[in-house]
Amino acid sequence: MSYTVSQLLTQDITFQPIEINGWVRGFRSNRFIALNDGSTINNIQCVVDFENTDEAILKRITTGAAVHVKGELVESQGKGQKVEIKVTSIDILGDSDPEEYPIQPKKHTFEFLRENAHLRTRTNTFSAVMRLRSSLSFAVHKYFNDNGFYYMHTPIITGSDAEGAGEMFRVSSLDAKNPPLDDDGNVDFKKDFFGKETNLTVSGQLEAETFAMSLGKVYTFGPTFRAENSNTSRHLSEFWMIEPEVAFMDLAGNMDLAEDFMKSVLSYILEHNREDLEFLDKRLLDEEKTKPQAQRSEMSLIEKIKFVVDNNFKRVSYTEAIDILKNSKPNKKKKFNYIIEEWGADLQSEHERFLVEKHFKCPVILFDYPANIKAFYMRLNEDGKTVRAMDILFPGIGEMVGGSQREERLDVLKEKMKALDISEEELWWYLDLRKYGTAVHSGFGLGFERLVMFATGMGNIRDVIPYPRTPQNAEF
Amino acid sequence: MSYTVSQLLTQDITFQPIEINGWVRGFRSNRFIALNDGSTINNIQCVVDFENTDEAILKRITTGAAVHVKGELVESQGKGQKVEIKVTSIDILGDSDPEEYPIQPKKHTFEFLRENAHLRTRTNTFSAVMRLRSSLSFAVHKYFNDNGFYYMHTPIITGSDAEGAGEMFRVSSLDAKNPPLDDDGNVDFKKDFFGKETNLTVSGQLEAETFAMSLGKVYTFGPTFRAENSNTSRHLSEFWMIEPEVAFMDLAGNMDLAEDFMKSVLSYILEHNREDLEFLDKRLLDEEKTKPQAQRSEMSLIEKIKFVVDNNFKRVSYTEAIDILKNSKPNKKKKFNYIIEEWGADLQSEHERFLVEKHFKCPVILFDYPANIKAFYMRLNEDGKTVRAMDILFPGIGEMVGGSQREERLDVLKEKMKALDISEEELWWYLDLRKYGTAVHSGFGLGFERLVMFATGMGNIRDVIPYPRTPQNAEF
Repeated sequence: MSYTVSQLLTQDITFQPIEINGWVRGFRSNRFIALNDGSTINNIQCVVDFENTDEAILKRITTGAAVHVKGELVESQGKGQKVEIKVTSIDILGDSDPEEYPIQPKKHTFEFLRENAHLRTRTNTFSAVMRLRSSLSFAVHKYFNDNGFYYMHTPIITGSDAEGAGEMFRVSSLDAKNPPLDDDGNVDFKKDFFGKETNLTVSGQLEAETFAMSLGKVYTFGPTFRAENSNTSRHLSEFWMIEPEVAFMDLAGNMDLAEDFMKSVLSYILEHNREDLEFLDKRLLDEEKTKPQAQRSEMSLIEKIKFVVDNNFKRVSYTEAIDILKNSKPNKKKKFNYIIEEWGADLQSEHERFLVEKHFKCPVILFDYPANIKAFYMRLNEDGKTVRAMDILFPGIGEMVGGSQREERLDVLKEKMKALDISEEELWWYLDLRKYGTAVHSGFGLGFERLVMFATGMGNIRDVIPYPRTPQNAEF
Repeated sequence: MSYTVSQLLTQDITFQPIEINGWVRGFRSNRFIALNDGSTINNIQCVVDFENTDEAILKRITTGAAVHVKGELVESQGKGQKVEIKVTSIDILGDSDPEEYPIQPKKHTFEFLRENAHLRTRTNTFSAVMRLRSSLSFAVHKYFNDNGFYYMHTPIITGSDAEGAGEMFRVSSLDAKNPPLDDDGNVDFKKDFFGKETNLTVSGQLEAETFAMSLGKVYTFGPTFRAENSNTSRHLSEFWMIEPEVAFMDLAGNMDLAEDFMKSVLSYILEHNREDLEFLDKRLLDEEKTKPQAQRSEMSLIEKIKFVVDNNFKRVSYTEAIDILKNSKPNKKKKFNYIIEEWGADLQSEHERFLVEKHFKCPVILFDYPANIKAFYMRLNEDGKTVRAMDILFPGIGEMVGGSQREERLDVLKEKMKALDISEEELWWYLDLRKYGTAVHSGFGLGFERLVMFATGMGNIRDVIPYPRTPQNAEF
C-alpha cells in the first residue's frame, strides 16, 4: 500500500510492505536517502541495499529526483529517526541533474529563491511557510464557520472608485493603443467590456455590509489590490484580505471579535503545525544570531505566538496614545522622524512600533481616532470629532487589523460624503442600507500576509505568498 | 442575554428573559411580528402586547425595519411554530418606509432582485442560496484539509497569456488615453506597473502544479476571469474556481478524487443545511409546476443531490460516447444542431446533455479525448492521438469538472508547445518541473458557481453569486 511520509512517521505500520513516492532531499554514503513528499517537514530515511542495486540507478539518486520506493518500514538503527524504510526496490520517476538543479542541499539566499519561486517550496523553510499559510487559511474559515458567520465572495472587478483604500488597477478589454474616444475626446469606457470604467477592488467591505444587513454575520477572504509604488518588505500589489462584518455589533464588540479571532487562529497552528513552527523557530533564532544583541527579539517565534494567545490585548484610545507619545523619550529627544506635536496627528509606523514594542510590549488596540484622518464610513462619536475606528498593532509587524463601527445614520453619512465629494449616485445601494432597516454594525480588515509573517517569523512579505506581485514584478 | 433566531428556535431556553435583534419580515393583526436575523431561513414569531404598546411604535413595525426586542421565549399557542417571544419591550433601530422599501412581502421576479442585489438576501430564496454557497465553500476547504491537501493562493494578476483557457482582461495603470509608446509605435508595457503586459488569470493550474511538485497535494479556490462576450445563464466574467493538483496521481486517481470530492461536499450540505434545502426544494417544485409536464424534472432538488451522493458516476471513454451519440435518435433524426459524423468531433452541450440526461441519467465522467481538441499540457496516451483528459457532466448543468493527467515528459511537452506556438521562454518555470524530478501528476478544475447552481436548483448563474459580473454589468 502507498503511504505519505507523514503517515509513515506517525502511524504504527512497521514491518508491513509499503510503497512511497517522493523527492530526494539528500543521498549519502550511497545508502541513505532522505526522502520528502511535502506531507511533513520531516524526511523519511530510505536505506538502499547498495550492493544489490544497479550502479546506474544509484547514480540517478540525486537531490531533487522523484523516486518510487518499495520496502518495509523498520525501526531505525541510526540516530535521528525512530523508523526508516528498508528499501527492496527503487524506481527513478524523474531525474534531476545535479549540475543543473538550482536547489542544492545548501543554504540559498531568499533573493535567489524568490527568483526560483517555482522551486522554493522544495526547501524546508518555504514548505513550512506555505503549510502554515494553508493552516492559517483553514483556521480562518473554521473560526468563522464555527461562530455562525457566512463566507461571502465580494466582487474583484468593481465599477466603484469610492472604496477609498488606495490607488486602483484598471481592468479593461479596450484596445490598449487606440481606445475608442467619446465626443469630448476622452476614452469612451461605455464601449468597454462592462460598459463603464472598472478597477480591481481594494476592499470588499462595502459589499460585505450589504450582506451583514440581511444575513447578520458575514466575512470575506479574497484578493485585494493596490496600485501603489511601494517597494517595501511589508507591501504587496496583490494580497489577501479577511473582512468580517457584523450587524448589531458596536466597536467594543468589534474589538472582542478581532482579539478572539486572532487568538483562535494562532492557537490552531500551535496545535496543528508544531513541527513546522519548531523549524521556523530555530531558523529565526539562527537569523537573529547574526544581529547585534540589541536588535534581537526577546522572545522566540513560538513564544511570541503563545504570548499573543495567552495575554489580553491592551486597549488604548488614540487620545491616550498621543499623550504617551508626546511625553515619550524619542519624541522629546526628536528621534522620531515625525514629532508628535498635538492631538490630531496621524500616527506613523515609528509611533505604532514605539507603543507596541517599547511602551506596552504586547498587541495594542488603538481606538477612537480623529474623524479627519479616517474613512468616510466610520461612525462619528458624540464628541463630533472622533470616530469609532480601531487599529490593532502587533510587535514586529505594525498594523495588523483596521476596523470600525460603521456610520449607520443616513443624514450623518450623507453629510460626510458630501464634505469628501463622494458621489451619492454611485453609492446609492450603500445608502439604501441606511434607509431601510439600518442598525449599528461593525467590521474589520486583516491583511492575511501580515498574519502569515507574524506566524512564521518571515521578515519579507514576498516570502509568505506563493507568487508575489510587486512594482515591476509579475513573474510566474 | 442576546440570542440569534437560530439559537432561540433550536435550543432549550424557554421562559428565560431574552433579547434579540433582527429585521421585520412581516407584521399582522398589529400583534405578530415575523422576525429574521439571517441566522436561519426561519423567522421567530414575536407577540406584541399591542394594547400596552405605544401606537407610534406599532406604526413603525414595518417590513424591513430593524428592531431590538426584549421578552420571554414561551411555547407558542398558535400553529406553525413551537416557540415564540412574548415581547416585553421593542425598540425600532432603523425604520423602513413601506411606501419606498423595494422588498415587499410578495413575489418579486429574479430580474428585479438582480437590480436590487444589495437587498435580495433579505428574501428567503437568496438568503438560502447564499447560506448554501457559504456552506459549500466551507465543505470544500474541509474536504481538502481533512485529506492532506494544502490550500494555495495562486496569483490573480498574471504576466502569462499561455494559460490557454480563454480571453483575458488586461490589468494596467498606464494612462488609458495616451499610453506611452515604444520605438515601434506600440504600447510600451515596459512602462506599466509590472514592467510588462499583465492580465487577470483564467486558471491557477500551472502555478498549482509547481506546488504539487513539492508539497504533494494542493488546491486553489479563487476568482478566475473570462473576457468573453457570453450572455448566457451559465457564464460569468468573474467566477470562483476550485483546482486541486496532486503529485503521483494518474487519471484514474483523478476521477476517484473528483467523484469523492463532489459526493463529500454535497453530503455536507445535506447534513448541515437541511432547512435551506427544503425551502429551495419546494421553490423549485413550484417553479416546475409552471412548466409543461415533459420539461419537468423527474427528481426534486434534494432527490437529485442524494442521487449524486449515493450513485457511482458512470465512466465512459470519449470513443464510447461518440459511438453512443452517432447511433442516437437525435443524431440520426438530425435533431442535434451539430450532427456527430465521426471520431474527433468536439462535443457540444446538446451532446453532453443527451448523454447525461437521456442516455445514462446520472453524472458521467468522459475521458481520453482526442488530443487536438484539448489543452497543450494534457498527457498524451500511448495511442498517440488521445490525451488523459476527463470532463464530468452533471444533469441540468452540463460540464461541472474538467481535468487531466498532465504531460510530465519534457520532450513530449516541448514538442506539443512548439506545434501550438506556445513560448518556451515564457513558461520556463513550467518546463523546469519536467526537468527536475518530474513525475505523474493530475488535477481538475471545478467552477464553483456551477456547483452552487446544482446544489440550490437555481437556473441562472447570476443568482448564485453575490454580485455577478457579466458583459455590460459591474454594478455594486
